[in-house]
Amino acid sequence: MTFFHDAIGLEEVTREGGTVYLRAADEFEHHSLTLTETDSAGVDHIGWQTRKPEQVAEYADLLTDHGVDITWVDDGEELGQGDAIRFQTENGHQFEIYYEMEKPDPPEERRSRLKNRVYTPTKTNPIAPQHIDHVQIWEPDIVELSEWLQDVLGLEVIEYYNLEDGSRWGTWLSASGFKIDVAVIHDDAETATFNHTAYTVDNSNDLFDAYDAMKEREIPVDGLGQHSISRGKFCYARDPLTGHRIEFSDSGYFVLDPDWEPIAWNETDLEDRQWMGGFDGLETVDY
Amino acid sequence: MTFFHDAIGLEEVTREGGTVYLRAADEFEHHSLTLTETDSAGVDHIGWQTRKPEQVAEYADLLTDHGVDITWVDDGEELGQGDAIRFQTENGHQFEIYYEMEKPDPPEERRSRLKNRVYTPTKTNPIAPQHIDHVQIWEPDIVELSEWLQDVLGLEVIEYYNLEDGSRWGTWLSASGFKIDVAVIHDDAETATFNHTAYTVDNSNDLFDAYDAMKEREIPVDGLGQHSISRGKFCYARDPLTGHRIEFSDSGYFVLDPDWEPIAWNETDLEDRQWMGGFDGLETVDY
Amino acid sequence: MTFFHDAIGLEEVTREGGTVYLRAADEFEHHSLTLTETDSAGVDHIGWQTRKPEQVAEYADLLTDHGVDITWVDDGEELGQGDAIRFQTENGHQFEIYYEMEKPDPPEERRSRLKNRVYTPTKTNPIAPQHIDHVQIWEPDIVELSEWLQDVLGLEVIEYYNLEDGSRWGTWLSASGFKIDVAVIHDDAETATFNHTAYTVDNSNDLFDAYDAMKEREIPVDGLGQHSISRGKFCYARDPLTGHRIEFSDSGYFVLDPDWEPIAWNETDLEDRQWMGGFDGLETVDY
Amino acid sequence: MTFFHDAIGLEEVTREGGTVYLRAADEFEHHSLTLTETDSAGVDHIGWQTRKPEQVAEYADLLTDHGVDITWVDDGEELGQGDAIRFQTENGHQFEIYYEMEKPDPPEERRSRLKNRVYTPTKTNPIAPQHIDHVQIWEPDIVELSEWLQDVLGLEVIEYYNLEDGSRWGTWLSASGFKIDVAVIHDDAETATFNHTAYTVDNSNDLFDAYDAMKEREIPVDGLGQHSISRGKFCYARDPLTGHRIEFSDSGYFVLDPDWEPIAWNETDLEDRQWMGGFDGLETVDY
Repeated sequence: MTFFHDAIGLEEVTREGGTVYLRAADEFEHHSLTLTETDSAGVDHIGWQTRKPEQVAEYADLLTDHGVDITWVDDGEELGQGDAIRFQTENGHQFEIYYEMEKPDPPEERRSRLKNRVYTPTKTNPIAPQHIDHVQIWEPDIVELSEWLQDVLGLEVIEYYNLEDGSRWGTWLSASGFKIDVAVIHDDAETATFNHTAYTVDNSNDLFDAYDAMKEREIPVDGLGQHSISRGKFCYARDPLTGHRIEFSDSGYFVLDPDWEPIAWNETDLEDRQWMGGFDGLETVDY
Repeated sequence: MTFFHDAIGLEEVTREGGTVYLRAADEFEHHSLTLTETDSAGVDHIGWQTRKPEQVAEYADLLTDHGVDITWVDDGEELGQGDAIRFQTENGHQFEIYYEMEKPDPPEERRSRLKNRVYTPTKTNPIAPQHIDHVQIWEPDIVELSEWLQDVLGLEVIEYYNLEDGSRWGTWLSASGFKIDVAVIHDDAETATFNHTAYTVDNSNDLFDAYDAMKEREIPVDGLGQHSISRGKFCYARDPLTGHRIEFSDSGYFVLDPDWEPIAWNETDLEDRQWMGGFDGLETVDY
Repeated sequence: MTFFHDAIGLEEVTREGGTVYLRAADEFEHHSLTLTETDSAGVDHIGWQTRKPEQVAEYADLLTDHGVDITWVDDGEELGQGDAIRFQTENGHQFEIYYEMEKPDPPEERRSRLKNRVYTPTKTNPIAPQHIDHVQIWEPDIVELSEWLQDVLGLEVIEYYNLEDGSRWGTWLSASGFKIDVAVIHDDAETATFNHTAYTVDNSNDLFDAYDAMKEREIPVDGLGQHSISRGKFCYARDPLTGHRIEFSDSGYFVLDPDWEPIAWNETDLEDRQWMGGFDGLETVDY
Repeated sequence: MTFFHDAIGLEEVTREGGTVYLRAADEFEHHSLTLTETDSAGVDHIGWQTRKPEQVAEYADLLTDHGVDITWVDDGEELGQGDAIRFQTENGHQFEIYYEMEKPDPPEERRSRLKNRVYTPTKTNPIAPQHIDHVQIWEPDIVELSEWLQDVLGLEVIEYYNLEDGSRWGTWLSASGFKIDVAVIHDDAETATFNHTAYTVDNSNDLFDAYDAMKEREIPVDGLGQHSISRGKFCYARDPLTGHRIEFSDSGYFVLDPDWEPIAWNETDLEDRQWMGGFDGLETVDY
């Protein structure tokens, strides 16, 4: 919690049974991150919210039809969340699909006077990020996984990046339809791992402020700059205790066009994958 | 063009037959605004893009079923745009529905080295707004229009505002699903009119820069601040020649939740409809 | 303290004998503001620091030569401050001149890891202003006072503003030589009064954040925008309890030229004294 | 000029005899940089403005007394500048001292409506820096030069940095009294060289914009971040043609205290000389 609450600035919603539920300051959901005490650092699962209530059951059937083993998670087992299913991808990404999620109910003295805002921002952590933006996952068979995410889960490709030899290095996909929600990066390891969770900040000044906050707390930072792909401006902080990495991101651009054509990058297009600054955060954590 | 191009910073895409096609710097479409020389100032129509190609014809049928007269606009009649339909709402809002829109093709020396960006921003107008954000329209029968926009066109209500006597003063709706795309404001006039078009800027510094640019050109500004509804930070400029108003907006918050419940405001909730600063731009233009 | 500490974000340095000593987050002095409990709201005095230690005594002699009654304030009477003199101007401004001031000594857990910074900014109030910028005082005989400030105290005029009838409305002077430190505004009242103290913030985003913080605490704000004179961007908050007004200011421009020629404004030069936005904070407090 | 005008955004004031005179957008002087066509890249001289007219002659006498050869530069020889003296330090820094400098006279259509601003910012280069901030010079005998700058020229030390072995690595001095105007860095080379000239931008967003502008023009950038010393946020661009480096800087903090005590850094105080990001610009140019 020193890292996730004090440094990163996530709000602690509640605790139960060894699990802490966290939410970013401008999120309208019960929580967007949970932390559970364990012996070894790792990611338990990534959750996806469906657009309609009935789609959880529909995905359950669809996944079963595709030969995927699903497990039902009962309403309330994860606090604030309705019935959900969990399953894993071929190489081991742990996913959850749910629809119902309680609305936030902050304490009176922390609540904003604006009805369309949850917290009074000036009574939260100065570096409080706004909302969850995307996750980055690593995967040996990236082309297959990307196609599966499109064909089965219904995600759309926003950008992709090929190495000079023509092999795929990364694919950036959208579940929401208007922004990148997951980045899938090639990794030579045999099993899938998890690189980072990104939370949004408002602008470049906030990135510098976030970096500054990490330095004052002696928390390692893995870079500052802007990615060419996604145009996201970034600053990465890493929890010294668990190795979990949080990206502060300005979220890049939004996809406003239903006829979006995926941006096709080749390694030779630009001199660097970072348009500005540098990034050196290559460690991942297991599921 | 002194106003829309030189001052506001929209890019001139092309001209044909007395019509100028304009686009904001970070739009991935052929154009987002057209200006046609006429004897009197007014808005010709508001265009809506469908999610899928077949939906233009589906809307044509649906609208006809609802007793609305539609007119087909052939592919290319509006440059860069495919087949479209035009029609008007009960009180006179002029709408167009289309799907196909050409992608932008900026001149080589203006094109960004980033494949996911259209223009090199530092070779555009310093005050160049990013993309079209929303329109605000005025209407005598706001409850009926809002319901029609939901039931027939499929828009969703994000926020609404009631006066102390319980009557509806405004409704903010989304077509895209993740942000407010149209604000419908009550007006005692008998027919529908048009108040402004909003284009996004990145942050509060840019709002001050936009305001500054207007002042240096002696263009009237109708306010600076933040709306309570939508949380949009704003600065409004008005074309001295035509009375058209452009809002520079930071776009407020994004709706990331499929289970969004409309924010219900009452006039008594806050002391002012502006959370910060002030706005005094009450003139509208006719269709 | 609800206003000055909780809302404005000044640091409480210490308390003694009914007086609270306050300092802004990035000030390298013991304090920049003191608050003393009294029956009626008012300003006790405005302090000026000399460039050299011996100048306090020199000013004592000089002022006595000019027929001004001075009172010595002993080292430590105002905590952290060395020997000082107090006196009042013809119409009643209460001034103090000092040289010695202790350096800040924040508690270990609040201290920055940077040796050239006092506090860890991310552990202070999110809206913490940086340092004191200027004061604005009101005065019936503004031309005489301005000349006295130049001739006796050695201040320099940076800008001045004449009404259309040729009479002086305001003079902006510098004690430091590189920025405006005091604004003297004409007032028809018979005696001198005090309008506001300005503290700096870094940029326009911070002005919006400061305004937002005031709104969440239901503290009245007297405007947002940019002054034509000084080019200072501003947001004014007023303590509901005492009527004291604090300006959040971006400090305008810096005077880097030793051969600066005062900017001479006439009421007819621009349509408004505010280049952007509006200001309506006309109440002053007595000495 | 592709670099200094088109990319960096300096204004071209005038040209005469193979020399181009440049000024930043918010400078109240005739020019702050001159470029002269030569066969080899190099810096001709660094100019210092005195506080009073008579001080040029006083410095001439003082320097002669200290055994320094001075050369008079007649009024107008450098356009816009009055009588000046030139001389070099022991190891070869080329300095000039002047007082008179003409005020800027921008063309009518570029002039701001604000009398306290030179150019209309929105009609200048979008990346236009505000004003010259400091120079960084490299020197074999840094302790001796720093003392000479204090004792003879009257500069003040704001910060200094010692290596772990106790030797001086850098000294940051102020001529103006309220900010760092020159950084003197240790170099093992036998003669003095010049590293960069810094121009200010307003905030961190502008640093990202400046970096972006360099990338779009394929101009090398030597880093983005914040220095521990001076707290200056930075982005460095290097002219591919001449090797001259321009720093975009937010100017760090201001020294408001006449009793400033130099900040004494030791290499062991922090893990890195950069508080944020990284810098790798080690090439210098000769005089």
